[in-house]
Amino acid sequence: VLADLRELQRRTGDNNGAQRVCWTEPWRGARAYLTELLAEIGLAPEIDEAGNLWSYLEGEREPALALGSHIDSVPDGGWLDGAYGVMAAVGVLRAWAQSGTRPPRTLAIVDFADEEGARFGRSLYGSSAVTGSLDAADLARAVDAEGRTAEDVLAENGVNLERAANSRSRLERIGAYLELHIEQGPVLEAEGAGLAAVTGCVGIERLRFEFTGQTGHAGTTPMPMRRDAGLAAATTALAVERIAVEEGGVGTAGRLDMSPGIVTAVPGGAGLAVDLRHSAAGSLARMLERAREAAGAAADGRNCELREEPVWRIDPVAFDAELVKAAAGVAGGRRLASGALHDAAAIARVRPAAMLFVPSIAGISHAREEDTAEADLRAGVIAFGEFAARVAAR
Amino acid sequence: VLADLRELQRRTGDNNGAQRVCWTEPWRGARAYLTELLAEIGLAPEIDEAGNLWSYLEGEREPALALGSHIDSVPDGGWLDGAYGVMAAVGVLRAWAQSGTRPPRTLAIVDFADEEGARFGRSLYGSSAVTGSLDAADLARAVDAEGRTAEDVLAENGVNLERAANSRSRLERIGAYLELHIEQGPVLEAEGAGLAAVTGCVGIERLRFEFTGQTGHAGTTPMPMRRDAGLAAATTALAVERIAVEEGGVGTAGRLDMSPGIVTAVPGGAGLAVDLRHSAAGSLARMLERAREAAGAAADGRNCELREEPVWRIDPVAFDAELVKAAAGVAGGRRLASGALHDAAAIARVRPAAMLFVPSIAGISHAREEDTAEADLRAGVIAFGEFAARVAAR
Repeated sequence: VLADLRELQRRTGDNNGAQRVCWTEPWRGARAYLTELLAEIGLAPEIDEAGNLWSYLEGEREPALALGSHIDSVPDGGWLDGAYGVMAAVGVLRAWAQSGTRPPRTLAIVDFADEEGARFGRSLYGSSAVTGSLDAADLARAVDAEGRTAEDVLAENGVNLERAANSRSRLERIGAYLELHIEQGPVLEAEGAGLAAVTGCVGIERLRFEFTGQTGHAGTTPMPMRRDAGLAAATTALAVERIAVEEGGVGTAGRLDMSPGIVTAVPGGAGLAVDLRHSAAGSLARMLERAREAAGAAADGRNCELREEPVWRIDPVAFDAELVKAAAGVAGGRRLASGALHDAAAIARVRPAAMLFVPSIAGISHAREEDTAEADLRAGVIAFGEFAARVAAR
Repeated sequence: VLADLRELQRRTGDNNGAQRVCWTEPWRGARAYLTELLAEIGLAPEIDEAGNLWSYLEGEREPALALGSHIDSVPDGGWLDGAYGVMAAVGVLRAWAQSGTRPPRTLAIVDFADEEGARFGRSLYGSSAVTGSLDAADLARAVDAEGRTAEDVLAENGVNLERAANSRSRLERIGAYLELHIEQGPVLEAEGAGLAAVTGCVGIERLRFEFTGQTGHAGTTPMPMRRDAGLAAATTALAVERIAVEEGGVGTAGRLDMSPGIVTAVPGGAGLAVDLRHSAAGSLARMLERAREAAGAAADGRNCELREEPVWRIDPVAFDAELVKAAAGVAGGRRLASGALHDAAAIARVRPAAMLFVPSIAGISHAREEDTAEADLRAGVIAFGEFAARVAAR
């Protein structure tokens, strides 16, 4: 599996990292390499109506157990994000194929298209399509940095977006879904844990607070007469941190735009981008409510107006309890909620799903430096194979 | 004077405001109109080596008393900033010329070139040149938004920057300098005062704090493991406000750039633009020291690195005590320190100087909406004439 991952990076990456952005030539090259690996064990890929790649190793029973992830990456991405899970799934099928024993249950491999949403800004495309939660009309209109529509670009890749929802029939044959992934965070490394069962994916509330005060001359506007929107936003950013800590979630103010944004002007406008995450729906709702209250108080305190723009939201997803228990069984008992989204979060809404995480060195992902200790990568693949075998045997 | 100001705006402004940016066609048009007004009272303009315009109404004695300001504006600027003082000076000379009486002392009018520095980013150009504090080599290399050098643009306007310092000889004939200007702030309006003697111009410390932490995934980086440079900057912005209030100055954080600046990333970098002003040098130095301490503490508290970039600084300028007293005599006793810079601040370093302020409606300046009640404009011109007469008679 590790050799396959290195060959994938050699074929499709460059000095700046992984370049397997979905619907591009390097991504098609990655799919071609995946097809070669499947052919080596006598399997042929099938592309569904949404552009997801499936292949099946016949077992004793059905429904099948699906193993997978995504082979697409962000631009200048890491070599492991997504690809690790896809290549591990290939490894598990290869091990069964070469063992001379039919698996107790049909094993499917799935490479979901465009998990990252790097080109059109819509994450979890392929896994949303097969679970029926894709807004195809919205995606069709989305444009990339060059102004090309997703409708046109996907058509060039053989996908008719009007038919993408038909991919849903693929799940009829699938009983459960398992995914191996890198953590993309620093928790496991900091704990010295080599592996964890993922309990689910956090819910997310993403919004933008817009504060409007009064622009003024930095020299001639006395402090008591100011209506400084920038300081209202700064106060809110600090409140977001405090609220996240108190509620046991994470909260981030990733961007603060002051207007007019010059050193000699009191900012009359400020926009603050806020991202709140929690694995418990109630706590997430409380975080959002408290953030709104904090923003309102910060605005009131500086005689500013406050407007709120919703950006995006998703409910928390809990993975199947039995599968998480089985995952913990091969992961030394360590459990962790994922702060990032994964295809498994989409699938979990309609089928039992679960994931295993291996550590990320320094927690770095979506960057060339993304890496995991080789021993952890090996242990992860072996544990994933054992996990799949146990679940398939049920 | 008010009719002259309206005609100036009709000739050189548009629906977006005043467009008399120095070294442009509308600015040359404003100078042409000024020349017409001087000709009406038998005066001819003289352009010095720096491009400042001077004219002299002979009086009983010398050295002369100079009255002036600047006729240039920012783009989309206000109709009064600078032009009010120039047209009032014309009005004072006109009143003397038409009175049939020689003034007790020669009265000079001066229109300083490029006070705003709107095109090349260097304020107080003309008044710095005549006081010997201009860095002509630095300005020569400065480029405008179209990539043209100041050296070339000034040459087109008849100014050889290598000879600009020779304009200093103009001050040999000048004993003192008086300037009438709009406040550009909300203080006088809020107090219901129609006029004020300006005691001096504040000193300014302008700098940029650069915080470096660690960029992280907004979902997978637990709160206690973050090194959030954006929050270090937000904390510092709030400290700047607190310090300004406590020290009795003004402090502004006009811009905060978070990096990478996306909603899904903990900011690993942040740049904060800070502007500190105080009329007392000791207090200004203490504000700077405390701002540095606050930035250092904010960085340390979040395990971030801190780097400081100086941007610009100027010492406070106190206007001549006797002249300020005389100004207060015609301004009902109200005194105010200017939070903005003016040509008088440059001149005050080498000659006695003082200013009068009239209120600005809502404190707005450098914008089309800039305005002053007509009664205040009239009262300002009359008081300025009286001020000039008293000083000239000494």
